[in-house]
Parts: sequence; structure tokens; C-alpha cells
Amino acid sequence: MAKIGIVGSGSWGIALAVLLYNNGHHVSVWSALPEEITEMKTTGRHHTLPDLVLPDGMMFTESLEEVMKDKDVLVTAVPSVYVRSTAQKMKPYCRERQIIVNVAKGIEESTLKTLSEILEEELPMADVAVLSGPSHAEEVSKGLPTTCVAGAHSKKTAEYVQSVFMSEVFRVYTSPDMQGIELGGSLKNVIALAAGIADGLGYGDNTKAALITRGIAEIARLGTAMGGKFQTFCGLSGIGDLIVTCASMHSRNRRAGILIGKGYTMEEAMKEVKMVVEGVYSAKAALKLSEKYEIDMPIVEQVNAILFDDKPASEAVKGLMLRDKTIESSDLPW
Amino acid sequence: MAKIGIVGSGSWGIALAVLLYNNGHHVSVWSALPEEITEMKTTGRHHTLPDLVLPDGMMFTESLEEVMKDKDVLVTAVPSVYVRSTAQKMKPYCRERQIIVNVAKGIEESTLKTLSEILEEELPMADVAVLSGPSHAEEVSKGLPTTCVAGAHSKKTAEYVQSVFMSEVFRVYTSPDMQGIELGGSLKNVIALAAGIADGLGYGDNTKAALITRGIAEIARLGTAMGGKFQTFCGLSGIGDLIVTCASMHSRNRRAGILIGKGYTMEEAMKEVKMVVEGVYSAKAALKLSEKYEIDMPIVEQVNAILFDDKPASEAVKGLMLRDKTIESSDLPW
Repeated sequence: MAKIGIVGSGSWGIALAVLLYNNGHHVSVWSALPEEITEMKTTGRHHTLPDLVLPDGMMFTESLEEVMKDKDVLVTAVPSVYVRSTAQKMKPYCRERQIIVNVAKGIEESTLKTLSEILEEELPMADVAVLSGPSHAEEVSKGLPTTCVAGAHSKKTAEYVQSVFMSEVFRVYTSPDMQGIELGGSLKNVIALAAGIADGLGYGDNTKAALITRGIAEIARLGTAMGGKFQTFCGLSGIGDLIVTCASMHSRNRRAGILIGKGYTMEEAMKEVKMVVEGVYSAKAALKLSEKYEIDMPIVEQVNAILFDDKPASEAVKGLMLRDKTIESSDLPW
Repeated sequence: MAKIGIVGSGSWGIALAVLLYNNGHHVSVWSALPEEITEMKTTGRHHTLPDLVLPDGMMFTESLEEVMKDKDVLVTAVPSVYVRSTAQKMKPYCRERQIIVNVAKGIEESTLKTLSEILEEELPMADVAVLSGPSHAEEVSKGLPTTCVAGAHSKKTAEYVQSVFMSEVFRVYTSPDMQGIELGGSLKNVIALAAGIADGLGYGDNTKAALITRGIAEIARLGTAMGGKFQTFCGLSGIGDLIVTCASMHSRNRRAGILIGKGYTMEEAMKEVKMVVEGVYSAKAALKLSEKYEIDMPIVEQVNAILFDDKPASEAVKGLMLRDKTIESSDLPW
């Protein structure tokens, strides 16, 4: 059994910590917030997953050195905006070929880099891998059947990560396509916003399925131009994660979209949802990337127009329906 | 504007007839059931879409000859089991190069052929095309934004079909991949059954997204072996249609699946749903095809085991989660 350090104790970090503990591993959890460590040590619970009892044998620490020392695997689960600064703090304790599995999602706005690229930049000695897929933390913490994909630079590392996480309720596939895995997970929130907007406008399942399907098509167009593989965007970390996000009221992005579809401004919607709505930031990043790589992304463009140019949502949908007639997949010959 | 004959007046045929009429075309509708023609002529309504008022200028006829005479386009919308017999009756009136757009979905159990293959066999003089995508008839009849893909042997025919159907609320893409379009639409009901079963077992959004994503992966494995293109299975007629089917309580397949997940036998579930559950038949056809083409289809296998071998649904899910560790896309090199 492996020794595992979890860097970051949001709901996803905690859900995975308990999964890994139940798989028989030795698990330590670190948080940047001392009060979170105290909460978990004294109550045996974490406020984001109130029904989950943390196992007795799990360790909690405020020390990055301690959570990283002699570990077979580190799991980074900090919010995307803290990934670079956390990695910088991790550097002194990071050993050569340390396996780090990043489970957070996002794109750094200033550099347009994925989180594993940031980790590799700051921790060049590490062997960075990723784990992603349709996986609400709450459902994983309840033991409901879930699937993910583990991406790594080497097949050996991917298969090791797979063997560490896999269980009767958590099936893990392997993939060499880290870039595709991370781009799908980061860009899906823009489409989730669009799907929420359609819901808010009172449109039906047909419209939402169209936005999801055409949304992943444009993410795939961009993602393949950036080096990801088309198959990955059609897989668990792409369309799978997008489906779960668009189906669930747990998603802040979808909830904010619904409000915008009902006529709220972006600021009013974010205030009402009372949390950071990632899709608003990824919408900007996606637009920048589409310009950089010269990729046609009509849904991303319309979401940006709604969010930042006060375009009425119903006008944006009409714009999507009436744009030039086109073929579905431009690479299929007649 | 085109002269269009609709062969078959179920809810999908009627919804498309009204869409085409509103696009400015001349539209005639045929039904094999004289009482259906009388109903539409006298009440201006069709019982499957009770809120929809049929436009005054639309024509209704019991004569196949009349509905087919001098038409630019015929739309076949009869249930899959009647496609061959209807095509045989159409033969005497079918002119050379007649464009026929098939909008029904299914695979003939005895021959394992798609519906357009049957039409081409019985009506070799016709230019057969297909139209498919995430499109509940009820939502199309309400003018909710919907997307579909038109597949044809020639680009010219595909673009003509696109121009005939496209409107402000109905966006049509073109594709050369008729085989992929039809296989996706026919096989999705097996996966919808599986998704319903997961719902009935009390599993969450993670499980359902996994079944949808891995479901389309195995449909794509089979479909590409049969000549379809991978991109098509990731498009509107593949994953798009599957998403709409798995999300909606309108889907009989999903409803039957939920009951089976709750412990009903297949017979009890079909009795309760009170309608033909296509997925039960496509499950058999899919299994036969997977054997014929030697394709690994674990979800299809488990659905068949539940339906026909009394395998408990929860055992089947465990079987899916614990089968051999594998890579996500077998064609990506490390």
C-alpha cells in the first residue's frame, strides 16, 4: 500500500483522501488554513461534506514538509489560483521523480497555461500526472459509482496512479493525453454557463444537448490545435465531465447561467450564487486562446458577448442558430 | 419553395411537417391509418402533440400515390418495423432520383440493416438521405431551438436537405456519414436503458455520465468497425441524441430502465411503461452486431444479462466497475 499526501482540503481533496484511505493506503491531508486542520482533527468532519465521517487513521497536518515527506504519491487539490504559489512553497521538500497527481482544474489567466504545466515549471524534478472525469465530490464521498481518467507522461506512472485510486466504486482509465484531459476540464465551465443560460431562457432538452455537443466540438477544435487528442474530448474528462456539470444543480456555473438567462447581469448572478463562478474567468481565457490559435468558437464568443458586452441572451441564441450553414465535422470527406 | 410529402404521421412526422410548412414549403402528410387522417382533417390536431394547431394550408391524404406525386422531397417517418413494408408499397410511385429523407431510427433485427439500407434495397431508384439529432418532437413542435445533422451520399443532396429544414429555431449541419448517423441513433436506446437502470438503483450523476460517455465509446467502437466515422458518434446524432434521451423522462427507455433498476423484471417494466421499449430490441441487435464484428461492448453485454438472464442490476454495475483495468482510447500512443 502507498503513502499518500493530499495537498489541499477542499471537498474534492477530502473525498479523494477518504477514497484512498478506504483503498488501504496511508493518507495525510494538508490545508493552508489552520482552522480547517483543527476542524477535521477535533470533529472528524469537513464542513463541505457534512455527512462524511473522516476515518480515524487519517492524518492531518499544517506542515507542507510533513505532508510531502516520504510519500509515494502527492495529490494536489488546491484551487487553481493557488497552484503556482503552493508549488513554489512545495519546492524545498520535493524529491526527484516525486509523483504528483493534480486533480484541480483551470487555466492561469495571465499565462494561459494548464495547472500541470505550472506544476512542472515550478517543480521540474517531479513526475506530474492528472486525474479528471465526471466526479462530483459529494457523490464520490457517498461511494456512488464514478469513473475518471489518469493521464501521465509515461504509461508506467499512469498505470501506477490507476492502481492506487481504483476501487469497486471508482473506476480509473489511463491516457497519455494530459493536455487534452486538462483543457477539457478547464473549458467545460464556459459551456456549462451557456447550458444554464438556455435553461434560464426556458429552452428545452434539445437546446441543451445541442449546446453540450457543439460546445465540446469547439473545445475539441481548440484543444487539438493546442496538442490535445480528439478522442480525449469525447471521453470522461471532456464530454463526460461536461454532461455532469450541465446536469447538476450543484454546478455554480450552471446556476449562474440560469440567472443570466432569466435576465440578471453577470454581476447580479455572481452575487446571488455567492461563490466564484469559474466559467466567467474561463470564458475570457477561452476567447483569448481561440484568438491565439485562430479557432472558430461561436458558443464561447456568444457567452463572452452576454457576460461582458450586455448582449441579450435570447439574441445570442438566435445568433448561434442562424450563423452560416456548415458541415458537422470539417475533416470528413464526402 | 419545395413540395414535400411526409410518409408517416407519428409525433416526429407531424412536428417536422409543421416545421417545413412554417419554412414556406408545400406539405402533404400521409398516414396508414384512415382514422388519423380524419382526426387531423376534422380537428386540426394530432393526439400525440395535443397543443399543436396544424396549419390550415397543410394537406392530408390516405393515398401513398398522392403524397408521393411530384414531390421534391419525401420524408419517411414510419416506425422502424414498418419501414420495409412501407417502402415496398411506395415502389410503384417512386420516381428516379427521388430524394427521400429518413427520420426514423432502428435496426432490422433479422438482417441487422439500418433503415436507409432497407429503403435503398427496396427503392433502388431513390436518393436516400437521413436526418437525426437531439430532437424531442414535442420541443420541436413548440419552436424550441433544436439542432440536427443531415447525412447524404452527395454533398449536393445534404446541402439541399439542410436548406429545406433549416430555420431560426432548427439548425441543420451536413455530413457524409450516413452509416454513423444511423447507428448512433439506433444503438443509443441500449445506453438509455442502462442510464435509467443506474437512476433506479439510486446512483448519481457521476454514474450516469460515466455510462453515457463509456456507452458512446463502445457504440463508436462498433460503429467505426461497421464503416461509420468516430467524429459522428461524438456529434449531434451520437452523443447529442444520447444526452437528450438519458436526460428526459419522455424517454420510454429511460423510464423502463428506472423500473428495472428498482427491481422490476423486463416484462413488468414494459407492462408498466405501456409502450414498446425499443432499447430492449436494440440491446439484442447490438449484442449480435458486437459478436459479428468481434467488438468488446461491456455495457451492452451487461444490459443483455439484466434483461434476458435475470442478472441483478447492482451486480451488473459492479461487473462494469471491476473489469480489467484499461486505457481510455486504445488508439492513442504513449
